[in-house]
Amino acid sequence: MSLLEALNWRYATKRMNGKQVPDEKVNTIIEAARLAPSSAGLQPFSIIVVKDKELLRKIQPIANNQPQIAEASHLLVFAAWDNISEERIKEAISHLAKERNMPEETLNEFKNKLTGIFANRTAEENFQSAARQAYIAFGVAITAAATEQVDATPMEGFNNAQLDEFLGLKEKGLRSVTLLPLGYRDEQNDWLANQKKVRWPKEKMVIELN
Amino acid sequence: MSLLEALNWRYATKRMNGKQVPDEKVNTIIEAARLAPSSAGLQPFSIIVVKDKELLRKIQPIANNQPQIAEASHLLVFAAWDNISEERIKEAISHLAKERNMPEETLNEFKNKLTGIFANRTAEENFQSAARQAYIAFGVAITAAATEQVDATPMEGFNNAQLDEFLGLKEKGLRSVTLLPLGYRDEQNDWLANQKKVRWPKEKMVIELN
Repeated sequence: MSLLEALNWRYATKRMNGKQVPDEKVNTIIEAARLAPSSAGLQPFSIIVVKDKELLRKIQPIANNQPQIAEASHLLVFAAWDNISEERIKEAISHLAKERNMPEETLNEFKNKLTGIFANRTAEENFQSAARQAYIAFGVAITAAATEQVDATPMEGFNNAQLDEFLGLKEKGLRSVTLLPLGYRDEQNDWLANQKKVRWPKEKMVIELN
Repeated sequence: MSLLEALNWRYATKRMNGKQVPDEKVNTIIEAARLAPSSAGLQPFSIIVVKDKELLRKIQPIANNQPQIAEASHLLVFAAWDNISEERIKEAISHLAKERNMPEETLNEFKNKLTGIFANRTAEENFQSAARQAYIAFGVAITAAATEQVDATPMEGFNNAQLDEFLGLKEKGLRSVTLLPLGYRDEQNDWLANQKKVRWPKEKMVIELN
């Protein structure tokens, strides 16, 4: 199945059948998100994986009672850094130097540039920037789920503050931005399962300047 | 090549060799982005495709003089709607009804709900929300480029207002958010071409609640 076939196959699944997704497939989806690019390579987000049924049931009311949450096999919570602090930049640079086997000092200019940029912005602005990076990984994860033939429902509709509270994200310096329940479509009960996929036609969405 | 192999193969290409990417591959990448999911299915963004060399050379200084802009075969500009207006929602709902062959009135409740949500927010808030949707498609396009073995450089570092002015995006109700030059890596001249890909280890980035 080509990538485009996979993207045509997927849809925002409204009902799932409760079947378990093999850990191997979940790991592939998470690994794809981990490999996603991010601004300056900071990867300013975490992915929380919930598979405990009791936890999923408790999260469902926080997400407008959407049934997929409890019917999913795994729930991925994309949570962005609440700020891009000097400390976090320092950690990222140290990690980069170590992985590339270079003296940390050679990255001082890069580190100072980044610190300068983010120190001049509010925590909220930095969070918004971090959230956008999480959305890139979210797009990559959605694509990976499709190629793994795992159904997924991209979701923004939930009470972020309540979920942060419930999962203890504030203490981790994280703020939830999106959800991605993973599972398998329940074709009998999902009204959307066999509806035509609707997208803007290319002529409307794409502007070619040649 | 598996999706993970493709994601490991790709990197933020710093120098490209000027070779043309076949239109077929570019179309696949754009089609992947067009198929990306978005909140309420609004797809509140456009993709501007620039392949004229003269235009690319003029855009380069607007993007911190990054050489990939002019060395690229095609440049994709992701531009989000400057607002999610009632008129745009209405157009999306009409399109949905037509595509699914249903009377438009059956979607009134959905339309009124959406209009209520976005009318209660400022244009800037709606733009920010639209930008996030564009980032999902951006992630999908980056993945598609990798599977097509086309190099790409995800970029946020450019003067958005200047680019909007240059491309006449304001008149179209659009604001540029990200760039994606497409082309082929120039391994001889790209310092990043053979560097180790650095990502946070899974243990740091992923939190499992089982």
